[in-house]
Formats: sequence, structure tokens, C-alpha cells
Amino acid sequence: MVTELQAQVSAVVLSEFNAPLKIESTSLPEPGPGAVVARVDLAGVCGTDVHLHHGHLPIPLPIVLGHEGVGRIWHLGPGVHTDFSGNPLREGDAIAWSSNIPCGNCYWCVIAGERTLCETRKVYGVNQRFDEFPRLSGAWSEAIYLQPGSALFRLPDDLPAEHVIALGCAGPTAVHGVIDVAGIAVGDTVVVQGSGPVGMASAMYAHLAGASQVILVGGPSGRLLLAREIGVGDVHIDIFEIPEAEERVRLVLDATPGRRGADVVLECAGVPAAVVEGWEMTRRGGTFLALGQYTDRGAVPLNPHLITRKQLRIVGSWGFAEKHYLGHIEALPRLSARFDLPRLITRYRPEDADKALADMASGRVMKPVLAMSAVSGADVPN
Amino acid sequence: MVTELQAQVSAVVLSEFNAPLKIESTSLPEPGPGAVVARVDLAGVCGTDVHLHHGHLPIPLPIVLGHEGVGRIWHLGPGVHTDFSGNPLREGDAIAWSSNIPCGNCYWCVIAGERTLCETRKVYGVNQRFDEFPRLSGAWSEAIYLQPGSALFRLPDDLPAEHVIALGCAGPTAVHGVIDVAGIAVGDTVVVQGSGPVGMASAMYAHLAGASQVILVGGPSGRLLLAREIGVGDVHIDIFEIPEAEERVRLVLDATPGRRGADVVLECAGVPAAVVEGWEMTRRGGTFLALGQYTDRGAVPLNPHLITRKQLRIVGSWGFAEKHYLGHIEALPRLSARFDLPRLITRYRPEDADKALADMASGRVMKPVLAMSAVSGADVPN
Amino acid sequence: MVTELQAQVSAVVLSEFNAPLKIESTSLPEPGPGAVVARVDLAGVCGTDVHLHHGHLPIPLPIVLGHEGVGRIWHLGPGVHTDFSGNPLREGDAIAWSSNIPCGNCYWCVIAGERTLCETRKVYGVNQRFDEFPRLSGAWSEAIYLQPGSALFRLPDDLPAEHVIALGCAGPTAVHGVIDVAGIAVGDTVVVQGSGPVGMASAMYAHLAGASQVILVGGPSGRLLLAREIGVGDVHIDIFEIPEAEERVRLVLDATPGRRGADVVLECAGVPAAVVEGWEMTRRGGTFLALGQYTDRGAVPLNPHLITRKQLRIVGSWGFAEKHYLGHIEALPRLSARFDLPRLITRYRPEDADKALADMASGRVMKPVLAMSAVSGADVPN
Amino acid sequence: MVTELQAQVSAVVLSEFNAPLKIESTSLPEPGPGAVVARVDLAGVCGTDVHLHHGHLPIPLPIVLGHEGVGRIWHLGPGVHTDFSGNPLREGDAIAWSSNIPCGNCYWCVIAGERTLCETRKVYGVNQRFDEFPRLSGAWSEAIYLQPGSALFRLPDDLPAEHVIALGCAGPTAVHGVIDVAGIAVGDTVVVQGSGPVGMASAMYAHLAGASQVILVGGPSGRLLLAREIGVGDVHIDIFEIPEAEERVRLVLDATPGRRGADVVLECAGVPAAVVEGWEMTRRGGTFLALGQYTDRGAVPLNPHLITRKQLRIVGSWGFAEKHYLGHIEALPRLSARFDLPRLITRYRPEDADKALADMASGRVMKPVLAMSAVSGADVPN
Repeated sequence: MVTELQAQVSAVVLSEFNAPLKIESTSLPEPGPGAVVARVDLAGVCGTDVHLHHGHLPIPLPIVLGHEGVGRIWHLGPGVHTDFSGNPLREGDAIAWSSNIPCGNCYWCVIAGERTLCETRKVYGVNQRFDEFPRLSGAWSEAIYLQPGSALFRLPDDLPAEHVIALGCAGPTAVHGVIDVAGIAVGDTVVVQGSGPVGMASAMYAHLAGASQVILVGGPSGRLLLAREIGVGDVHIDIFEIPEAEERVRLVLDATPGRRGADVVLECAGVPAAVVEGWEMTRRGGTFLALGQYTDRGAVPLNPHLITRKQLRIVGSWGFAEKHYLGHIEALPRLSARFDLPRLITRYRPEDADKALADMASGRVMKPVLAMSAVSGADVPN
Repeated sequence: MVTELQAQVSAVVLSEFNAPLKIESTSLPEPGPGAVVARVDLAGVCGTDVHLHHGHLPIPLPIVLGHEGVGRIWHLGPGVHTDFSGNPLREGDAIAWSSNIPCGNCYWCVIAGERTLCETRKVYGVNQRFDEFPRLSGAWSEAIYLQPGSALFRLPDDLPAEHVIALGCAGPTAVHGVIDVAGIAVGDTVVVQGSGPVGMASAMYAHLAGASQVILVGGPSGRLLLAREIGVGDVHIDIFEIPEAEERVRLVLDATPGRRGADVVLECAGVPAAVVEGWEMTRRGGTFLALGQYTDRGAVPLNPHLITRKQLRIVGSWGFAEKHYLGHIEALPRLSARFDLPRLITRYRPEDADKALADMASGRVMKPVLAMSAVSGADVPN
Repeated sequence: MVTELQAQVSAVVLSEFNAPLKIESTSLPEPGPGAVVARVDLAGVCGTDVHLHHGHLPIPLPIVLGHEGVGRIWHLGPGVHTDFSGNPLREGDAIAWSSNIPCGNCYWCVIAGERTLCETRKVYGVNQRFDEFPRLSGAWSEAIYLQPGSALFRLPDDLPAEHVIALGCAGPTAVHGVIDVAGIAVGDTVVVQGSGPVGMASAMYAHLAGASQVILVGGPSGRLLLAREIGVGDVHIDIFEIPEAEERVRLVLDATPGRRGADVVLECAGVPAAVVEGWEMTRRGGTFLALGQYTDRGAVPLNPHLITRKQLRIVGSWGFAEKHYLGHIEALPRLSARFDLPRLITRYRPEDADKALADMASGRVMKPVLAMSAVSGADVPN
Repeated sequence: MVTELQAQVSAVVLSEFNAPLKIESTSLPEPGPGAVVARVDLAGVCGTDVHLHHGHLPIPLPIVLGHEGVGRIWHLGPGVHTDFSGNPLREGDAIAWSSNIPCGNCYWCVIAGERTLCETRKVYGVNQRFDEFPRLSGAWSEAIYLQPGSALFRLPDDLPAEHVIALGCAGPTAVHGVIDVAGIAVGDTVVVQGSGPVGMASAMYAHLAGASQVILVGGPSGRLLLAREIGVGDVHIDIFEIPEAEERVRLVLDATPGRRGADVVLECAGVPAAVVEGWEMTRRGGTFLALGQYTDRGAVPLNPHLITRKQLRIVGSWGFAEKHYLGHIEALPRLSARFDLPRLITRYRPEDADKALADMASGRVMKPVLAMSAVSGADVPN
């Protein structure tokens, strides 16, 4: 084991915004008390990574990107015996981990119980430097150093890594928004606005929660075709074929009992105008979730009279906490049995990370994934 | 008893929009099975009555206005032995009644359990004709014919009629919106936008529900002074003194722990711009209630990014159902012990109903009340 | 149409407790305003019917039994154009209906919004006489007269009657208890105590709501085998093989993450001792639903310290209201696609109703169903 | 300041179970990073302290008892600038603190969000040794060392220490159970079983949350008289005067509208039989909270049929977390304005701690309080 820990590992490093990523090598640190060093098998590329690469967010450089990963335990630090759900851990176990480490000590963490709102949380692949110990704090690397307090979870033995990575951070994001905040009741009619990763994950969770009807409003046609093929959505409305919002609203009303509109509308489009349209699609007394408005694109004309008259419940959800990450892990075997998850992903070699970012940016692929372990000749137990 | 039922009673009748109201006389009908004929003691004048008088809503003419009333049972129809809460009823008992009678048989009444959304509900003083049996279907009358299915409630003996009428329909409207939909937890910091009847009632209910701090944002100064005098609100922000929304937001943040904003913001202003301001005043993870957006004044620029980032919960509430009316009746002894409710009202004689409407429209008074029983020489048991 | 309405129809009538049922003939009434006359295709036999036959409950005689049915519209009464969900109705449409008609006018119906608690509700097949108009008020008949206010629902065209009747009243009962009262979140570990109709329906709904693991505790082995074959339950514990409650509790703890116990325990066994066992199986902070304690079998030693220390949430659910019945209808296409529902039923001819009751009583069959339309030579539109 | 920090402080130390407490002296430590050293002004004596003194719970010896305290900041450790609610802290500020410090890193703290269930939490005055650094970890001391992560809160300047200590840990316990878990809606009829500190606090919170009627069932008569005098409870039922449970149930039903029973029953009696009685007092569809069953006194015959038939919601609540402690602090000014809180307390000198324990055990006093600062000659800023 010692030899592996002395091994050099490679990581994809962002040193300059908008410049090509570089593969750099560093030595593998030994995990301290409460920490775990994991081999990364697959690492996801997310739309946020595109923004980070462009310097749209204030992050430190140099940095190993990658907030989505799945791998195996390389070395357990002293005192680490179980995961956060109480399952025993051994070296070689397949694991995944939440990218977020809230401080655990502020108003939001302790009093409000809203760890997603912690203002000083650490995020792997987003705000941890490469030039400081432990350096390996992003998933676009052969190995990651999981600090004490990281929420890591052992995976079922029969769950392939492709299935775990397929939804990326959209999976726990949907658990937070769709299941925890909006809530789907068995029998609900649900509209999902947007067919990107968050929209796909949200629609899958709507199915999983027992929705009677899932209406997917998105595009372009390739994404809707993929959705149809893997059984996501019962009705599909292509925003390129039906460019008029009013017409889309009409179609949704036509599809719902008594033309009342949907019980729940899940906005995963990211465009402010989708909110205007979504309020029209929601039935009186129904729920509208703003899950996609991550970027501040400014105000849009909205009619507050609708909130009062229709007695709407409008909720927002931001990121996810450890419990949502575990929720996703617990749901994965069911999702995996129901949907052909690997169909969502496109594999890239680490040295093609720039291309993966470009393809993500263009929407040419649904979910780029970096195959990290192929780079490494190192071995792990099991 | 027979003699009284043969008696003629007077009612304030609207026969032509924007024209003066007239007092007309009609005979008192005998209540059929399940119905109750009640003497009206005090009848409220509401902002909606001003709109009705102007013909802003499609109502039938002629009509006896008045959807707020308190009085005594004159004659119980066959089969009526208790009120909706199970209290025994006798002639002479003081009662109040919900203005709304949902159909009880539609999707909203039976399936959704949202009787406020019933599309065919009858409303005393709003959609019941004067020229059809039973004619007396508004509270601006010496007597009202309460149809079978009316939610009427016996009042505690020691609760004066002035206290019952003081909040008018704003009382049950606040129970629905503030207590049932938004919810106030003991210890909450609450902002109330608006100091008209709905704002006053909502602020009182926020106090009653145990809010630690109630910040009343309204005006003009006379209304805030009245609020202060009767103990409504802990902090008062006068929108005429502080005309800049940004400054008002700053003051609210300053008044809340950690400058996080209010746990709950209750919009009772009716102006779309108040919603923009209210979202800013709400803390992350907090609740915003749109209670005042009854009239469709069109869209206003709102930033949906706030919903996602702040994880807001935005809810709307429309009118009230029988259970909210009962909730208000049950809360009245506590409200009455705590606030000098009669301070809100200004009495008018029925023949001055036009003046009452004009004073309501101008905001010169908080709550005009018509003293109906003074007109009548008739007597009731007790 | 007139001819059919003059036709005689046969019904299975209970005239004397514990005596054989008789098939009697009566003329088909024409539906009055708001009513519907339906042909019954399949009628369910429920454990309650066994109790009714034995006179364990105070019901009127003679009576047409049968509170579970599925059929087609024979004749629409004046004014009936849509079902309770707003779907248009035509003669010949396949329909099902809720057995319960709450009064719609009492404290429970109007104020509490708990129509299941209405004390004067009518129940088809339970408290409607055969010797009074409209006589045909039970489902064990070729036709049923659905009174005004009945919650009837149009069925999807491609949903066979066998699938609709398979869960009988256990379906909406599970919607009420499992979905509406207890609540299952995606990812939950769920224990179901009991493998009779209510246990099977509850376990199916737990699956449908996204439970990660469903542990079915029941017996005898034939029922668990059937459950396994149709995919109900992930873990099966046979109470005859494992007669010690402590051992069953141990097995449940072993099967749950961190041996914490189940997130939700659904008691569908009907035996008071199951409650004692179920509290032990529930994790700290978890939910226990008492769904099976319909009969008063008296007290059992329970330790209230567990409620406080484990912070349990213990809830009860009684019968169902119209909204739960609709919930079941809305969920049926999903249940039907997932589970081989007809495997649950055993068909009987109406003249074998006594045998159906006997087989239900002995537990020899899961769900006896009377094939009513086979008796009839009458035809309906479509 | 240095001089004070070198000062010796006295503490009441338990070195042997059932033996007299001793006052011992130790030097005042300087607070490390994140820690705070506070002067204790008043420290509460709780029923649990009686149990601890008798050795009924496995606690380490020697120990400074006292999990309830109020005092002033003596010295802020490096890095401590605000309390957990974001209020700035200065030396000399009046503060109170939660006795519990959950680990912040386990399934219950991070995933379940139920910090009350943390199995390794530290508790001041209960599981912190006197013979280890920092020694001063109980409130029965002139000073307490508040470790990093302690939830301490600045108190309003005009809130006397007597008001803060009066409810002791029963205050936050009631916030958890009554407000957070059971929930009281404005207008509810509430029964409180038990008139000890938890019952008094729960009844006060029921009032504060807007209950229309609070029925206090307790004794002996002195406690009910005190309750009446300070305005706690609207109806008082003395269990010594009315020793029959059935009769008490009848009185409660008589006092509730329609004899339906109470909307919410709060069990604060600690006797298993109270649960049997409480279920009978709860209306159909109502809530029963088991708040007092802290000690395992074994099983009691309970009828689970009631849970199903009455559709009860039965919940338990154990201790409190930081958010409930803050909730109590936020509510205190309202409680203090409404109830004469100091009436509950009886002052003792630290050297009379044994007598305080004895008086608590005998029920002779409601709330013994040790006046700690009187012992000390040391001074604090302000």
C-alpha cells in the first residue's frame, strides 16, 4: 500500500481562465485522521464547469476542477470506519461523495438546518486550491483527498460507475428540489420545463415518486428523442417545434384533467421567461418550483395577481446538502433499474477535457464524463 | 313571533351602478327547512363594496350589498338545531355567518378540499339578487335570510357586536392567508406590507400566533398611529416618510437578527410593486405571502433568480372558506382581549351608506359600519 | 335505450344474517337528475362483507352487498355531463365509483375537511336498503343506481376491469393511509406488516412512491410467494416461519442502513400485537401508520416511553374519501404497468357469492370477485 | 482583565452519588479559540438533577452539575465575535446558552437533521468531568467555560435574569415539542396534562401560539393556583380533586365545542397512564404529544384501535436542539410580558444546593434557582 501512496497521480488543472487545461502530476498524500484518499474512476463535466473555465465565478487558481465523481477507496485515514449512513467501509469499496462540505457551525447549518445556505462551505472542484495541501480536491484527477467531514457513501456492489455518474450533480439537485422542496405525490400530473441534465433528472424523479403523467417541455429534438427512448416523460413538447409559449400552455392544459393545469411544474430551463410560462401551466392550488434560475439574468415581467388568485405555491431550491446526496444514492438502484442511465453519458479521456467542456457548452452531448482511472497504472485493493 | 315575521324590513339596495343607494322595504320571509332568518345589528363596508358600487365586477342588479354582518337569530327554520361547530342554537342567539356558500359538489369542494376555489359559490351581498326569493341576501339590511348550508356560528355571550364586525372579511381572510397558508411560528420576525383592514388583521394575527417582532410597513401616518395606539406592530415604517423602497428594505434588514430579513413577509398592500419589495425583505428560506393582489393590475418586473438563490417559499391566498371563518370566530375573544378592536370602526346610519362608501374609498376611515338594527323597531327574543 | 331501462336486473341480496344469499330480480329505475345508472361488470368481495354477512355490524336488511365495483354507464341522469375530475361522460363509458357519499354539510365535511369522519355518510353495499328506492345500491348486482353526489370516475379505455377491481377498497384505503397520512418519500425503507389485500396494496403504493426497500412481513407462505412473483416487496419475512416477534424485529433492523430501523412502518395486520412489534421496527424519528386496526380488539401493553425517546410519529387512517378514490384511479395505470394485478383475483359467478364469502373468510383466496355482467343478457352502448 | 482571569472561582461539585454536594474552588481558565468564559448569575435546578444526584444515570464523577444557566460574558476567546443568531458579542453582555453540543458530524446531525438524537453530544452539567480541562462545564458554578461550538445567545438588555431562568430547560423542551413537533394553530383547544415545569412551559407556549382555550390538568392545588394567578390555563382540572380519569375525560369533552375533544393534547405528566387518558381527550383527527415520557416506566394497556378509528396523530419529542433554545430566547420577551415568570422560582444560595435538590424532589417548589454570582466577589465588564 505504501508504494501506491508514494505513487504520482495526474490531475486536470485549470491555471488560467479560458486557457487550455493541463494535466499535472503530484504525489499522493497519506490521509490524515478522518480523511479518505480515493481513486477516481469517472468524473462528470457539468455546465457549471464551463462557467468556471470562463472565469464567470470568483474561484482560486490553480485548481483541479470536478465536483462530480465516483471511485474506490484507496486509503482510509485513521478513525474512518463507516460512511455517513453507517455502512462499514473498507479499502477498495466503491464510493461516491457529496461535493459540498458545509461548515457545520453557522446559523444556516445549526439553527436553520439549511446546510445548502452555508456561506463558508467548501466545494470540491470549485473553491479548493491545487497549490495547497492536499492539492487533490477536485474529481478531474486520478485521486481525490476527501477531507474529514466529507459525506462519502458506499455504493451497492452491483451498481456500475456509469450509472452513478450519469446524472452528476443534477441527481442530488433534483432530490432537493423535486422531492424535498416541491414534493411530488403519487398520482400527480407534472410538467418539467427543460430537457438538460437537471430537467432529465427531475423528470426521472417525478416518475420515481409516482407521478401519473410527466410532461416534458424542452428541446432540441435529439434530447426529447433520447428522453422518449429511455422512458422519460409521457408527453413531449418541443420548444423549437412549438415556439409560442401560449401554444405550449394550451397543450399542457389540454393534457391535464379538466384542463386545470399541472399539479406541479418543475422549472429546469434557466431562462426567466420559463417562469412566466410555468405559472400559466400550474393549476390553481398547484406548486411551481424554480430550480433552474441559478444565474441572475435580471427581472422579467411577472403578474403577482396570479399568485393570489390561483393560490399558487412557488418554491425555490439551491444546490443540495449531504442528505440529498444520500437520497440520490439510495434512489439510484431504482432509477438504474428503470432508466438506461448510461445512455446519457459520453466518455472522454482526461487529456480531452477541453473538448468535453466545449461539447457541454454547445449542448452537443448530454453528459460528458472523464474516464480518470484509465490514465492511471496504479492499482487499488479489490 | 308570527307578527315579527310579517313585519316589513328595510334594506339598502343597489339598483344602478354609481347611483345613490336606496332604502327599500320588503316583507320578512319565514325560513324554510335548514334556513335561518337573522336580524342584522351591524354590517361592514368593505373596499370590495366600493368596487361593486362602481360596477367593476359583474354582479346582478338589484342587490342588497353587504357580505359582513353580525346579528341575532330571529327565526330558526325546521331542522336547524346547532351551528357548524356543534353549538346548540336558539332564537335570540348572537351569531355571525360566512358570506360564502361553496357548492359542496365540485372538484374544488370535494376533491381538492379548496372550497375557496369553488367556481359556483354563492356570496351574500355579491351575487344574490334582491328581486328573487328570498330577497334578503345581503347584510345591509335589517334582516338576512341565511340559506340552508350557510356556515353560521353562535357567538360568545360576552363578545360585543362591535368586536365581531371590526375586522370584517379581513379577519377570516387573514386566518386563511396568514395562519393556514403562510403560517407563523412562535418567535418569527414578520413584515406586514399594508396598513388597511387586511394589513391590520394580518398583523394582529401575526401577534396572536406568537411572532417575536411585527414590522408594519404602511401609511398614511394616521393609520400607523392608530396601529401603534392599539398595539399592532412593534416597528412602524411609513411609506410616505420613507418613499424609497430600497431604504425600507434596508430598515427591515437592520431590524432583523443578523440582517437576514424577515422569516415571513405578508403582502397586504395590493400594489404589484410591493411584491418586488417584499421578496427583498424576506430572508433566505423565508416565506412571502401574496394576500393583497386581488385585482389584476398586470405584470411587474420580478427577478426569479431570487426564488432559486434565496430558496423562497411564495404563496398566495384567495378569500376564505367556512373553516377560516370559524377560525376567526374562535380567535376573536383573544383578539378582543388584546386589541381595542372598536377603535377601527366608524358607525353610519343605513341612510348614510353612500357616505360610508365614499369614506371607505377615500381611506378617510378604517372600517365603516352600518348600524342596521337602529332602523328597525322590530324586536327579537332575548 | 328505453327497452334496457325496462329490463329486469338481478342482484345478490342479503336478507338474513348468516343465511345463504339470494339472487333477486327487480326493474331497472331511470336515473333522476344528477344520478347515473351503471351496469356492473365486476364486483369485489371484501373482508368487511364477511363481517356484514355475519351481522357483526348494524346494517339494514334486506340489502344488496358490494362496496367495490367497476362497470359501464348505462344511463346518464339529467345534468350529468362530467365525472368529478372534469372528464366528459357518455353512456357506455367504463367507470368506477367511490362507495362513500359523505353528507357534505357537517363539521367534518365542511370545517375539518375530513370527509372520512362524516358520521352520516351513505355507503353503497353497507347502509342502503334494497326495499327502498332506488333498491340497486350495492355492487353485487347487474346494475347500480349511483345517487347524485356520487364520486364516479371515467376509466382509461385501455385499463381492463380486472385491473380496476383487483385491489378493491384496499386501493383507496392505501392511498389515504400510505400516501396521504403516513407519506412515503423517495428513498425510504418501508416495512409493511400484513400480506392481505390492504398489506398488498400498501406495499404496492410504497413501491410506486419510490421506496428504496419494501420489507413485507406476513403470511402464510402462499401469499408471500404471490407477492414475490408479482414483484411486491424486496424482503419477505414469513410470520409462520419466524414466529418470534423479537426475531422479526432483529431481521428488519439487520436489513436497514445502520440498523436504525425502517423510515416508515405500515401496519396492515389488524392484530394489536403488530403495533407493539411495529414500534420496535420503526427508526428514531420515523413514522408508524396504524392502518389495520379497524376492529376494536381491546388494549395491548404498549410502552409510551418509546414515543418520546424515539421521537416517533404515529398516525392512524380510517377508510377513504373521494379524493383518495380518485388518487387510486389516477395511479392505476402505473400500478397496472408494474404489477400483474389480475393475479390477485379469483372469479366467482354471482350465484356462488356464498362460496366467495367463505373463501375470503378462510383466507384461501386473496381477492374474490363476482362477475356480474355475465348474468345479464342486457347490453350497453359501446 | 488578566487579574480576573487569574481569580479563583467556586463551583458546586458532585463527587459521590447521594452524598452532600461540596463547594470547591478552581482557577479560571483563559478561553481558547472559539470558546467563551462566562460568569454565571443564576443556575436552574431541574428534576433531572435529582436523578443525577441519586446516580440514576451513568454520569462521570466528579462533576459540576447544572444544565441551566444565565450570566454574562467574562472573556471572549479568539475568533468569537457574534452569537449563533448573528448578534455581535462583547464582554459584559448578558447571555444564555444551550446545554447540548451535538457532534455535528453524524447521521443524526448531518443527514436526519435531528440534532436532538445525536448519540455523542456533550451536555453541560451532565457528562463533562470536573477533573479535566476545562473543569468548569456545569452551571452550578461562578463561571462556566463554553466550548467552541456552544450555542450561546445574547439576551435583550431589558430582560432580567430571573425571567430567563424561570422555565429552565422546560422552555426549549416545550419549543421543540409543542411548537416544532406538535404544532399549535391559532384557535386550537389544547389540553395540557401535568402542571410541573414542563407542563407550565407547554401551557404558556400554547397560549403564546394563539390557542383559544388551554385546559390544564394537574395538581396539587398549589400549582394550579399559581397557574391561575399568573394566567396560565383557562380551565383547571385538579387530579387530586377529580381522581377518576373517566371523569376528567368527561370534563374535557364538556369544555370542547361539540364535545369533540381537544385539537391538541400535550402530555407533560410523565406517568404512562396519562397517555391512556390523553388519547381519550383528543378529538378525532387531533394531535397527541408524548412530551413527558422521559423515564422508561414500562408498558401500559393502550388500545391501538383508537389510533385508526380516531385518525390520531401521536408524536414524541425528546430534549431540544440549538434551534429550539434560540426559539425560546426569541419568545422570552413575549412570555415575560404576559406571565409573571419570576413567580415560578425560589432562590437558594449555592451552599444550599442540597436543600434545593430536596425541595425539587418533594415538589415543594416549582423551580429552585441557585444564585451563583452572589458567591463571587469578582467583577465583569459592565
